[in-house]
Amino acid sequence: MRKSLLAVLGLLLALPLAAADEGMWLFNRTPNAIFKQRYNFEPTQAWLDHLQKSSIRFNSGGSGSFVSADGLALTNHHVGLDCLAKISTKDHDYVTTGYHAKTHAEEVKCVDLELNVLQSIEDVTARVNASVTPGMTTAAAQAARRGVMSAIEQESVQKTGMRSDVVTLFQGGEYHLYRYKKYTDVRLVFAPEVGIAFFGGDPDNFEYPRYDLDVCFFRAYENDKPVHPADYLKWSETGAKDNDLVFVSGHPGSTSRLNTFAHLQFFRDVAYPFTLNIFRRREVLLTNYAQRSIENDRRAHDELFGIKNSRKAYLGRIAGLQDPAVLKAKGATEALMRQQVTRDPQLNAAYGDAWQNVDAAIATYRPIYTEFRFVEGGLAFNSSLFQTAKTLLRLGDESTKPNGERLREYRESNLPSLKQALYSEAPIYEDLETVTLADSLSNWIEVAPNDPLVQQVLAGKSPQERASELVRGTKLRDVAARKALGEGGQAAVDASNDPMIQVARMVDARARELRRQYDDNIAEVLRQSYAKIANAQFKTSGGETYPDATFTLRLSYGTVKGFTENGQAVSWETEIGGTFAHAAEHGNEGEFKLPASWMAKKSLLESDKTPYNFVMTADIIGGNSGSPVVNRNNEFVGIIFDGNIQSLPWDYQFDDRVGRAVAVHSAGILDALRKVYGVTGLVKELTGK
Amino acid sequence: MRKSLLAVLGLLLALPLAAADEGMWLFNRTPNAIFKQRYNFEPTQAWLDHLQKSSIRFNSGGSGSFVSADGLALTNHHVGLDCLAKISTKDHDYVTTGYHAKTHAEEVKCVDLELNVLQSIEDVTARVNASVTPGMTTAAAQAARRGVMSAIEQESVQKTGMRSDVVTLFQGGEYHLYRYKKYTDVRLVFAPEVGIAFFGGDPDNFEYPRYDLDVCFFRAYENDKPVHPADYLKWSETGAKDNDLVFVSGHPGSTSRLNTFAHLQFFRDVAYPFTLNIFRRREVLLTNYAQRSIENDRRAHDELFGIKNSRKAYLGRIAGLQDPAVLKAKGATEALMRQQVTRDPQLNAAYGDAWQNVDAAIATYRPIYTEFRFVEGGLAFNSSLFQTAKTLLRLGDESTKPNGERLREYRESNLPSLKQALYSEAPIYEDLETVTLADSLSNWIEVAPNDPLVQQVLAGKSPQERASELVRGTKLRDVAARKALGEGGQAAVDASNDPMIQVARMVDARARELRRQYDDNIAEVLRQSYAKIANAQFKTSGGETYPDATFTLRLSYGTVKGFTENGQAVSWETEIGGTFAHAAEHGNEGEFKLPASWMAKKSLLESDKTPYNFVMTADIIGGNSGSPVVNRNNEFVGIIFDGNIQSLPWDYQFDDRVGRAVAVHSAGILDALRKVYGVTGLVKELTGK
Repeated sequence: MRKSLLAVLGLLLALPLAAADEGMWLFNRTPNAIFKQRYNFEPTQAWLDHLQKSSIRFNSGGSGSFVSADGLALTNHHVGLDCLAKISTKDHDYVTTGYHAKTHAEEVKCVDLELNVLQSIEDVTARVNASVTPGMTTAAAQAARRGVMSAIEQESVQKTGMRSDVVTLFQGGEYHLYRYKKYTDVRLVFAPEVGIAFFGGDPDNFEYPRYDLDVCFFRAYENDKPVHPADYLKWSETGAKDNDLVFVSGHPGSTSRLNTFAHLQFFRDVAYPFTLNIFRRREVLLTNYAQRSIENDRRAHDELFGIKNSRKAYLGRIAGLQDPAVLKAKGATEALMRQQVTRDPQLNAAYGDAWQNVDAAIATYRPIYTEFRFVEGGLAFNSSLFQTAKTLLRLGDESTKPNGERLREYRESNLPSLKQALYSEAPIYEDLETVTLADSLSNWIEVAPNDPLVQQVLAGKSPQERASELVRGTKLRDVAARKALGEGGQAAVDASNDPMIQVARMVDARARELRRQYDDNIAEVLRQSYAKIANAQFKTSGGETYPDATFTLRLSYGTVKGFTENGQAVSWETEIGGTFAHAAEHGNEGEFKLPASWMAKKSLLESDKTPYNFVMTADIIGGNSGSPVVNRNNEFVGIIFDGNIQSLPWDYQFDDRVGRAVAVHSAGILDALRKVYGVTGLVKELTGK
Repeated sequence: MRKSLLAVLGLLLALPLAAADEGMWLFNRTPNAIFKQRYNFEPTQAWLDHLQKSSIRFNSGGSGSFVSADGLALTNHHVGLDCLAKISTKDHDYVTTGYHAKTHAEEVKCVDLELNVLQSIEDVTARVNASVTPGMTTAAAQAARRGVMSAIEQESVQKTGMRSDVVTLFQGGEYHLYRYKKYTDVRLVFAPEVGIAFFGGDPDNFEYPRYDLDVCFFRAYENDKPVHPADYLKWSETGAKDNDLVFVSGHPGSTSRLNTFAHLQFFRDVAYPFTLNIFRRREVLLTNYAQRSIENDRRAHDELFGIKNSRKAYLGRIAGLQDPAVLKAKGATEALMRQQVTRDPQLNAAYGDAWQNVDAAIATYRPIYTEFRFVEGGLAFNSSLFQTAKTLLRLGDESTKPNGERLREYRESNLPSLKQALYSEAPIYEDLETVTLADSLSNWIEVAPNDPLVQQVLAGKSPQERASELVRGTKLRDVAARKALGEGGQAAVDASNDPMIQVARMVDARARELRRQYDDNIAEVLRQSYAKIANAQFKTSGGETYPDATFTLRLSYGTVKGFTENGQAVSWETEIGGTFAHAAEHGNEGEFKLPASWMAKKSLLESDKTPYNFVMTADIIGGNSGSPVVNRNNEFVGIIFDGNIQSLPWDYQFDDRVGRAVAVHSAGILDALRKVYGVTGLVKELTGK
């Protein structure tokens, strides 16, 4: 449940009042009354600060935490996978075989991994809103807001040196400045084999019971030395128990809980079917590619995992929306709120038009949806070389503009992170690039057979021929070539005759026009409308609330407990020993084949009752992968790695009757590290023993 | 390359003059002048009759031949797969483990396999055309033609007792009555393991070089005794050699070679992308299902193979159409012919409007395409139980009508074959039915979210709930229940409260209306237009020609020879010993894992130079799988099982510069039967030794 590959651009929304153990709460607005009332728990500010500063955002799409005084950073294997794949070669496959560095010297540097640790939050809503004056067009409002956000960020960078992001919360209801300590030298310490980290594979993904050691240890370095974070989580050797109150501190990617009925219908009828077809297409393409050889399989592994993971998540979401009961409930809640707004003249004047404005934005989006996704969203060019070319081209053009007028990803304060990715030494495989680019060009012909731009890009060739020519012809695989263009500015890019740059330039005018339409006429209208809806909700319901997920730090909470499925009780935990029975039930084959390291310890482990994976009611979503689970004492008791199938509709509606977050247990991790891998140094670093 | 799952309904067309070794020739109109001129070969009528009557159509979607005096029928393993899957159980999986019956008593009866052997062809064009009088509407013409065809067939059945089909050739240019000897008691004699029959799996499918023992031996029975066909092919122990002239006698399913430029564009832009998305969706769904357990894998194997096979074939076809050079050539040929027609007032009066009428039919089709495919074509109901319910419902209704007025599949002469399938004892798996029905209902919501019929069918439930309820509620898994309704006629079906019958009834009015629109306004217009285009082609080019494929017996010919790919020469043959090297190149894993029987003989076979698979220029397409390859002496020298990737565009354009048909070699088959399987009885039956 890594963050979805195709993030839904700019559709960040806000949320209804918490029910049950609901909520992805802001660290500067935790629901202390709820904690007190439901669990008789009152966290101190120090408790919250410690958890916040021990929590890590993995910019490859997940969460994690510091778990030692020497900068040991724990996340899921499937979050670390991005790094593992990029450092692997034909001859040394870290994904398949796993890894353990016995000394600091053996720790392997990731090529482009960036970690962020949130240091402070500042509410800048007033300053952002002040930039927008009454009577502005939506385009002007959008430009003004973008300008002041870039300025705030750049001032903060200059003042503190920290990564500084203005985060849009409550879909524009509030703006908070997040300052992060950033680590860009991150090294691999320990990874188990993918065969146990992702044991059960796609069939078991989003299912429970599970038996996965989905963990990966990295270490953060500065100046070539391990860092010593002031805050890190103490490891609980006993870990979570049934009925424990637990907290999850992580970075949920995005949710759609404040979405209107009509907006969810748009997801059900347009966005999700479209996106699922893209996922299925890529899954079939890459599975085919991967099956052709062991080396192909290695090259495609990480991307294929991500696609299957997203496909399964979206299937769960669409299934929820296709259940009439779900939309019926949504419709009823919405009707009630609109009634309250309509009845109050003041509320009605302020917020009454929000729902129809959402409808209007969707109506504007529908006719350009496919073209926007293909031309600006990149679906026509499924190639990292093309994306690199596009970034270089725009970097050149945008750098000539004042900071506040740039496309948001090119604002000054974001350039270090952008360049970290742009100049990455991660391997690019010509054959795989050709396969994916050819298929995406072919898909573009399918959706726009008569578009002259398609013909211009193809230059009279078949998608296969054209893709092959572009991939073989470009020099952008070479990091030095990328740097020369990236640092050479607009003049250097303009002078380039690299064929991939030329194609990026060919489509850029149309892509920018679509982006402008989207930003000004859709995203901005949605932002303004949802800000109204969020405010209407504050006013009509009162009480504490939380914004939709934004891949920024949130606190969730819940109870460790099992659930009932098809009339059967499902226990809160699985045990280490159960792994072997689960493998045997599936013939010990394919996705259920255990690695040799585990088979060698079978007789020792088969009857091992140590808790291994467990479930809880905490509210999570993609991006929470790797989030630490802590108890009342702020001790590490587990690590989130999945949600069960019943949790998939949490995207738009939380429900903890049977939905559960799934974690690896802290005791199970220790047990495996000791008995299977014998990594006593690592265990000592975690436990002091 | 079994016949495609989703046959393109009713789009049977005609063809340009043969170039190179082109052509799927009618047995009653073989290109003797070409044989003579190119190969100095003059087949006698006896030679042709012998080959015709040795050739078999497998109604599960392939071809085959008699190869012994005791009714031994050889086809591909992947054609036999349908039977193998249906006779398998959780405890005895004929697909994975293979099978050999040592005695007739051990031969296992297939549950619903029907074999057809063509006995005679009679030209009935004049009688069919006489039924259509000038000034008839297209609907009336369609009804008149359907009426007379049913009458001819029924008369023939009554006179001869043979299966009798009026086949529409040259897209309505000619009508021939085909009479078949029919075998419905067919028993499994020998099947190798799927691991060697389909060695290399999906990655190697439609590729060359290959190393597959894609064969399966059945035996035809009558009155519980093996039949003794008057004609069967003599087995050549030496088999095909490089540069040999060879003939392929089989049942190509469908081709689109006479299609207009605009019609091919419709395939490229509408039909193929749509169909490929359906294939990908089902592939992902079933792969997921299959991976959940070994038993699931077994249950889904046959269908999944078929889907992957079709997906790869369609990908090849769309790739060809997306190559601008291909459509450019088609456009040029078409423009030339239209010019010739336009210049000649008589031709112009007779045929000049054909192309624009095709355009009009396509324009009529486009707006109902998706709904037609979902509601009448069955895409909304991917469930054999639903298809059974629909057939029972319509059988009841259609049986009350005069034979000539029925939907064509319910004509009297077709009922025995229809009931053979309807009352099949083939297993139906509730879990798999639920998964596929739920997914197809979900897909239907996606394409028609606001259709009241969708809501009516779902009855306020989610697709998953509704599918589960229908599959659990229906009694149609029980063959006796099916027979009671099928033999009880309209009254019995009307009285049924079976939920699946009720759903079939719910959609039947709309489905029939779509069918009527399709039959009357699209298929009939296309038929009339393509008949004109075919005739225009006869007139403007003269000479011999052949109609598009119709899953009826055809004769192809060609030369055994290799080809050049990416500058590399690819040999005409592979050798038995090469199998082990090919496995090792792929790590002996997954699709490249050889069965234990082969690994046990590795040291014996590794250096075995016996020809194994080979290629030739003969013109084939899906449905030709299992076709015998014979030499000048009418001896069996190989069995077609695939085409290389370059042959996929043969659907609409033959080209033997690099395109090749792929076969298993008769010597290789014997070698494997002797050395790997030691089935001396079978070898003796084939060779007399």
